[in-house]
Parts: sequence; structure tokens; C-alpha cells
Amino acid sequence: MDIKQYMVELGMQARKAARVLSRTETSQKNTALLKIADLLIESTPKLLRENNKDLEAGKKSGLDDALLDRLALNEERIQGMAEGLRQIAALADPVGEVSDLKYQPSGLQIGKMRVPLGVIGIIYESRPNVTADAAALCLKSGNAAILRGGSEAIHSNQAIAACIVQGLESAGLPKEVVQVIETTDRDAVGELITMPKYVDVIVPRGGKGLIERISGNASVPVIKHLNGICHVYIDDQADKQKAINIAFNAKTHRYGVCNAMETLLVSAKNAADILLPLAAQYAQKQVELRCCPTSMEILKDYAGIIVLATEEDWDTEYLAPILSIKVVAGINEAIEHISKFSSGHTEAIVTENYSRSRQFIAEIDSSSVMVNASTRFADGFEYGLGAEIGISTDKIHVRGPVGLEGLTSQKFIVFGDGHIRQ
Amino acid sequence: MDIKQYMVELGMQARKAARVLSRTETSQKNTALLKIADLLIESTPKLLRENNKDLEAGKKSGLDDALLDRLALNEERIQGMAEGLRQIAALADPVGEVSDLKYQPSGLQIGKMRVPLGVIGIIYESRPNVTADAAALCLKSGNAAILRGGSEAIHSNQAIAACIVQGLESAGLPKEVVQVIETTDRDAVGELITMPKYVDVIVPRGGKGLIERISGNASVPVIKHLNGICHVYIDDQADKQKAINIAFNAKTHRYGVCNAMETLLVSAKNAADILLPLAAQYAQKQVELRCCPTSMEILKDYAGIIVLATEEDWDTEYLAPILSIKVVAGINEAIEHISKFSSGHTEAIVTENYSRSRQFIAEIDSSSVMVNASTRFADGFEYGLGAEIGISTDKIHVRGPVGLEGLTSQKFIVFGDGHIRQ
Repeated sequence: MDIKQYMVELGMQARKAARVLSRTETSQKNTALLKIADLLIESTPKLLRENNKDLEAGKKSGLDDALLDRLALNEERIQGMAEGLRQIAALADPVGEVSDLKYQPSGLQIGKMRVPLGVIGIIYESRPNVTADAAALCLKSGNAAILRGGSEAIHSNQAIAACIVQGLESAGLPKEVVQVIETTDRDAVGELITMPKYVDVIVPRGGKGLIERISGNASVPVIKHLNGICHVYIDDQADKQKAINIAFNAKTHRYGVCNAMETLLVSAKNAADILLPLAAQYAQKQVELRCCPTSMEILKDYAGIIVLATEEDWDTEYLAPILSIKVVAGINEAIEHISKFSSGHTEAIVTENYSRSRQFIAEIDSSSVMVNASTRFADGFEYGLGAEIGISTDKIHVRGPVGLEGLTSQKFIVFGDGHIRQ
Repeated sequence: MDIKQYMVELGMQARKAARVLSRTETSQKNTALLKIADLLIESTPKLLRENNKDLEAGKKSGLDDALLDRLALNEERIQGMAEGLRQIAALADPVGEVSDLKYQPSGLQIGKMRVPLGVIGIIYESRPNVTADAAALCLKSGNAAILRGGSEAIHSNQAIAACIVQGLESAGLPKEVVQVIETTDRDAVGELITMPKYVDVIVPRGGKGLIERISGNASVPVIKHLNGICHVYIDDQADKQKAINIAFNAKTHRYGVCNAMETLLVSAKNAADILLPLAAQYAQKQVELRCCPTSMEILKDYAGIIVLATEEDWDTEYLAPILSIKVVAGINEAIEHISKFSSGHTEAIVTENYSRSRQFIAEIDSSSVMVNASTRFADGFEYGLGAEIGISTDKIHVRGPVGLEGLTSQKFIVFGDGHIRQ
């Protein structure tokens, strides 16, 4: 099999399908989504059988338990996929939305119309549910999709793809609207990310290594999500209970997620007052603390692992029950620290002070900036996007949780009556 | 001089200046813009003197007349630059604008705030006025700028840069908000486009060669403008006089511009009725016609150069008094032809038919799609953007004329009252 030729073929088919899809009515796209949801449920036995092949192979090749868990399908997860598709069907169609349509001095009426990007390449790792999710988001936003899942999930992904193809065709759409790459050859990814003629944007979903590798080599634009080194700053005018609740939730609600807090900054004035009761809660969750000298001194009796933070700690995404803590003079030092070490994902301030809340919102350059809320809320569903294909830590095109709108662009539309330029 | 080190230094200074600028009030940015405008006028003798050095050197090195004309400053052009700055000062500040601020089911109030991109690198060719324009657009949109003009304009650009620096400082802003690269060494460009740590986006302004070279080598995102192969399709239900006026204006109003029509498509039903009177007008402007066999037959008595079009003609941006003409069966063939050959810049339909106007608007995937208007209107000023830094033929981030908003991004802002995730 000639990989280059195979990928060009997929690309050409995707371009063609994208043109059909861009002019497809909302109802037809929704019919396809609901049909695919039904087919996934109906195909449960087959999906479990195919998934089992992947799991057996994974065990043989020595995948660890966490990876096997991500790879595994069960009835509940299949229902979850179907439910996700139904939710996307229920979302408003972003395509065709016209905004800012106004008359200009020339007499022309000029506005913007939201349009699909065209063809989207999605590269992801072991979770097979991404196949359904990503296909559905692309379909609803009018984009053709080329999907490349992890090689360890190839049987599961092909089985899900079969449901998608059947659903598309039964709704009268070309099956090439969603194409799942059938080879596990790594060269396919290399081709996919370097064919701007056929692919408009790449969305990689997975670990930092995958994303860096892809964006380092892509000639197609990449919507990327690098790390999430999220900060919470507790101001000396914070409400004590809110501060403790938020700092506890942001660290311990889930550890392995990009919107978990990794560094806690506390104003010197109320550091002891906040840190002592907060640490008592962390201790129950066996959170390891990595402290600046001042917080180390305050927390010297901590009932858990506590060490002095190194410079590297401020720059680390733990994704684990580990927290670095720094006492700062006040909001300005907090903003300085965040500007230096944040990955630009999500930062929060806890304060009752009006001016400081405004200063934090204005000066922190991250994709989400919060006042008196846990960083764990940085999420497409919580933000009302309905679904998310990822969280962008880029500044260009789209920033933060990426929903349907992030998979579209806007073109100018101009209505005249025979207007010519003078 | 170590170019790499010099560029990193510029980059670090730009980052620092960008942070200051991002929190600068609108009035202070406007003060700087108006001061720079005044300084340009006051410095007219010096600007003309420095410009003369460039012109002399250009003549010696054999620059052609068109290039020398673009390079030349005179009192009127300097006044034009100053006027441009005053217009940008008068525009609304895009930074800090909050949209879609809504309560979500969690009780959090979530919206988007418009923020600067950070540091913008502008690479341009001979026109020295771009130095003032680009600096002003970046300044107003809260972005630090690193400017790299053509080496043939180095004295003019440095003289303009001196006014900018003085204006910034007199308004209390760091002079590093706008930095003009002082060396003509080509390696400086290579560094600028490969330092994503210090530069957030590159805007190249110039010929296709420059832009392809830059986007082929850049690791920083590029807002690019490739060619403009713009089409006008005259439907058989077009108003004859509107059709002739638009097709004449779109081709002959200016030849060397990206929004000029390069290919005219005419419905077979009214081809002779439109083409004969239209060609009589083109003949007066000595427009060369490159025709499909059918239009060749209709226009065989054309009083000017007329040849059969080759396949390559449909794919060529003439930027000259040359027009390719094709007779098509109707709107569907027109859309097919445009989908195949358009550069995605601007296309127009002339028709009085409601459904066809809607079909054209929906199905044409170009940055501007027009009904009954000349393609020459595709322009930031005409679109009410107030000013433009270029026209993007990309789909990602920004499409079509790029004004202040295209130089910004949006971050999510979240207001809570102690909210934690359940």
C-alpha cells in the first residue's frame, strides 16, 4: 500500500464530501447524527467484540492498566457515545449564521456569514469514543473529517466507523464525510499533517508528546492544547471559606486533568490563616506539598509529604496529587509569577476586592481567567458550548474550550444593487 | 553583529512592552497615535531628505520606475500617513470588549473578552508608509510590533521609526512597543519568523513570492494573503446594465490590485447580449481578452487583442489589463469553475434571481461573496473596519480584510461566588 497515495485519495474524497456537506441542511445533518447514535446502540455486541480484540492485543503487548481502561468499551460507555451524538444533534447549527450585517456609506449591505473550515484532521490516542465525538462535531459544523486513532484501538475504531458510514448513507450523505484511516502505519500521520491542499486544520488530542510532535512537523494549521499549569491566587481580601473550598476543589476534584490547579499562590497577609485549615484537608487526600520557604515554615507540621519547591516545580504540570505553594506579597507578585510560569490555560483569583478582581481579569493572559471559581470549570460543557473537541492554548483562531464555533470560520457577504467602485 | 542574539533581544523587549501595552488605557494609546501624526508632519523635511537617500541608492542599483514610485515620499504622502494615524486613533478600541456574558446552569457568569495577540511581526516591501500604518494598527490593538521593511527603504523607515519612538515616549509608553529592525541582513527575517516564544503572529505584506517564502519557513503562525483570482458570474437573469457596469468596473477600475476581476463567467443564454456591449467598453481601455471558444466566437470582431484561453489562464492572476472570459451553462457550472480555480479571495454574482443569489452566497467558499456589486469593494475601509493591515486568504483565525479585530483574540472570563465543581 502506497501511504502517500492512499492519503491523497482520502484528502480528495474529503474535499469533495466537504463541498456537499457545506450545503447540507441542518435537519439532514441531525438525521445522520441520530441514526449513528441508534446504530451504535444496536451494534453494542459487535462493538464489544471488536473492542475485545484490541484489549487482548493490548494486554499481550503490555499496555498498562490506565491505558487499557481508556481503551475499554462497555455498555455504559457506548450509551455515553450515543448520548453525546444526540446532544450534538440538539445544538444549534453554527453554519450560515449571519452577524453584523450593516449598511456601509457606499450603500452596500455587508456582514459576516459563519462557514465550515472544510476538512479537519483529528489525531488521537487510545479512547475509541473520540471517534464518535469528533466525527459528530465535525459533521454538525459542516466539516469533513479524517480521523486517525491510536493503533491499539484500530478494531474498535473501525467498528465505530462502520456505524458512522451507515448512518451517513442512510441520511443521504456521502460516506466520505467521515473517513477513519484504515492503516496503523505512522507515515499516514506524517502525510495528513503536511497536505494543506486537502486538510484545513489538524486537531491533535492526546499527551503533550503527541501534540508537540505534530505541531513541530505540520504544515497544516494545528489547534493545539499543550500543558495546563493552572494557578489559583488567594488574595488577602478573599473570603476565607470560598478560598479554601476553591483551592481544595481545584486540586483534588480530579488530578489527571488539564484544568486542575498545579500551583497555589497565597497573599502573605493571610497565608497562615488560609494554609493551615486548607492543608488539613489536603492531608486527608494525601496531597504532596512542594512549598516555598515561607509556606514550608507555616506548614511544617503537615501530616503528609512536604518538601521545599525547586525552581522546576513552578514550571511543572503534575497531573497528580502534588501541589506547589508559594506565598506572595500581593496581587502584583501573583500576576508576575503567573506571567512567568503559566501555560496560559486557566487562572483564578479569590478575592472580595473589586479593583483587584478587575486587575486580574484584565492583566492575566490566559485562555480562561476566573474570579471566585474553581479552575475545574474550564470546560466546553460548563461554558455552554454544548460539546468540546478540545481546549486550545493557542491565541490564534480559537482560545480555550473549542466547540462547534471553533471549527468554523467567517466569510464576508456583500449585497449590492449594481454598485461599482468610484 | 550577532543577528540571532539581536533578534532575541528585540523579541524579549517586545514581550515586555506588550505586557505594558495590554493594560494601557485607550486614551493613552490615542495620545501616542496623535503625537506620532504630528511628529511626522513636523519632520517632513527630514523624512524627505532620508527618503531621498533611499531613492538615490535605488536609482543606482537599478530599481524600476514602479518600485521607485512606491518607495517615494512627498508632502502629500506624509500627510496621508499622518491622516491614517488620526483615523486609527478615532476608531473604537477593540481591547477589553466583552461579549456573550451569560449565566450558565452552574450559576457562573461566563463570557469572552477581546485581548491583544501579543507581539506581531510585520514584514513588508518598499512602501515606507506601511511602517506608520502597521505600527499604528498594532499599537491601537494593544500589540507590540516588530517591523521589517524592505532594505531599499531603510533610511525612510528609520526616519519614520524615530517619529514613532518619540511619540510613544512622549505619551509615556515604552519605546519598545514598536521596534523597526535596524539591519538589512536577510537572516533577521529568518529569525523573526521562527521565534514563537517572542512573536505571536507574522503578517507579511508584499508579493506572492515573499509571502510563500515566509509561510513556507515560519514556525510562527502567518496571516497570509496569496493571490486574488476573483470571478464575476453574470447570470441570465442579471440586469443587463448592472452586469456591464460591474464587469467593467471590476476589471478596469485598477489593474494591479488583488480584488480586481481576473475571470468573467457569463451564462450562455445572455452571453452575446452582455459580451458585445461590454467588450466595446473594454476595447476602449485596451483590455486583452482570453476567451473560451464560445466567447471567442461571439467576440470575433473585438477591436483589441483577443486570443483563445489556455487552461493556465483560468488559474492566473493577471494584475494587468487582461481578462479571461468563459461562457457557462448556468449558475452550477459557474460555481464548479469557481470552486476549481478561485483563490478564495472575492467572487460576485450579478442576478435578479432570489434563489440563485442565495445559492451563490451559500456555496461559494471565498473570503468575500457578493451579489450585484463590483469585486473592487473587497477592502477594509469599504467594509467599515476603519483600516486594514491586509486581506487574509486563510480560513483559520481571520478571513478577508483584516482590521483591528483580526489582530486580537478572545479569552474566556468567568465570574463566580465561591463556585466549586461537583
